Amino acid sequence: MHHHVFTAPKTTVPALCLAACELVGGQRHHAISAASALLIMESATYTHEHLPLTDRPKPKPGTKPRPVVNHVYGPSVELMTGDGIVPFGFELLARSDGGENSERILRVMVEISRAVGSGGVIEAQYRKTLDGESNGEEMCHVEEIKRVVEKYEGGLHACGAVCGGVLGGGCEEEIERLRKFGFYVGIIQGMIKRGFKEDKEVIEARNLALQELQFFKDKEVDAIKTFLNI
Amino acid sequence: MHHHVFTAPKTTVPALCLAACELVGGQRHHAISAASALLIMESATYTHEHLPLTDRPKPKPGTKPRPVVNHVYGPSVELMTGDGIVPFGFELLARSDGGENSERILRVMVEISRAVGSGGVIEAQYRKTLDGESNGEEMCHVEEIKRVVEKYEGGLHACGAVCGGVLGGGCEEEIERLRKFGFYVGIIQGMIKRGFKEDKEVIEARNLALQELQFFKDKEVDAIKTFLNI
Repeated sequence: MHHHVFTAPKTTVPALCLAACELVGGQRHHAISAASALLIMESATYTHEHLPLTDRPKPKPGTKPRPVVNHVYGPSVELMTGDGIVPFGFELLARSDGGENSERILRVMVEISRAVGSGGVIEAQYRKTLDGESNGEEMCHVEEIKRVVEKYEGGLHACGAVCGGVLGGGCEEEIERLRKFGFYVGIIQGMIKRGFKEDKEVIEARNLALQELQFFKDKEVDAIKTFLNI
Repeated sequence: MHHHVFTAPKTTVPALCLAACELVGGQRHHAISAASALLIMESATYTHEHLPLTDRPKPKPGTKPRPVVNHVYGPSVELMTGDGIVPFGFELLARSDGGENSERILRVMVEISRAVGSGGVIEAQYRKTLDGESNGEEMCHVEEIKRVVEKYEGGLHACGAVCGGVLGGGCEEEIERLRKFGFYVGIIQGMIKRGFKEDKEVIEARNLALQELQFFKDKEVDAIKTFLNI
């Protein structure tokens, strides 16, 4: 597990979770379990995405091959590691409650379940797979890429920000603003990762994210604003 | 998901969860979400166990081949379905709370996380894989099989019984008795499934299970006792 958690690509979701918690007046330790759970669950997703399954589409000759992942363990162990990480994430969260915040923890669990589950990251993976099957190469339509990014990075960052807001004791309006802010941060991160650095989608998302932050103008927004400096 | 949940082999874990809840004086609806979560998570485990990975050991000529599973979907989809089911199970549980039982729900989540996670079912799968690699055939030592059964069926049934006990409002002594009872039920089920119907392990487990039930002698134990009639 240690190996898989620390070789997965870096993610800003846990940091965003902590920043959101502090923005609404919470303390970092309120959100640290949720941030850790998000970190390890995203690494489990990454591990499973790179499992050498028998039906992975082979790249067509002439197209860009998939990035090569250094598999230290065999596929069976990687499958199990991913499967073991997810319950551990939920356990971390469930154990983190000192008896005062159990309502908030349960709410955060629903958020995380949805973000990593079949309506979130798994749907993004499914779209990627379908697309991979239909033309045997990496996706190329910006619209389709955007839909994947919305569910994947967008959904995870929205979730991270909401979890921080909930655990930090934010009000409903703050939490929903943070959800949108997180979503736009995810769009920016995901699109840039896929090579769309200066595209209108990225610029648009940055402007929308800044709009959401205006709601918090009487608070210290400098920390959370740094997620837009990429 | 529907397909995978309903084609996985039948399991008695959810029923045991409900029976345990009723035994300690709870009502069935208190434990129905936990029972459902356990049902779908066990099916996810089954789905992943039968994924056609590239490093699954091939049966040696002359040994019994692995049971053939009818794969309706491709491996990528089966991987994702399993990955989607687990968070959905936690979501079911997290949403099931009407605001009164959040402490109990969190406790149940810790139990389920441990039973399905890296110290439970995943460890059993790992042992099976190691053994499969070392001699390229199904396990044959009864001791090794028993260790797998303890973590797998034993752990899951113990968890199911504990969840029922917690959600039904049982006291700590009742909950720990139910844990042991569930564990022995799991041993019996798992050993019989692997062809050890009349072996001393099964008979011993049945006697130990009956001993645990004596603690509940002033309660209605007929329903939960049926788990020993196999």
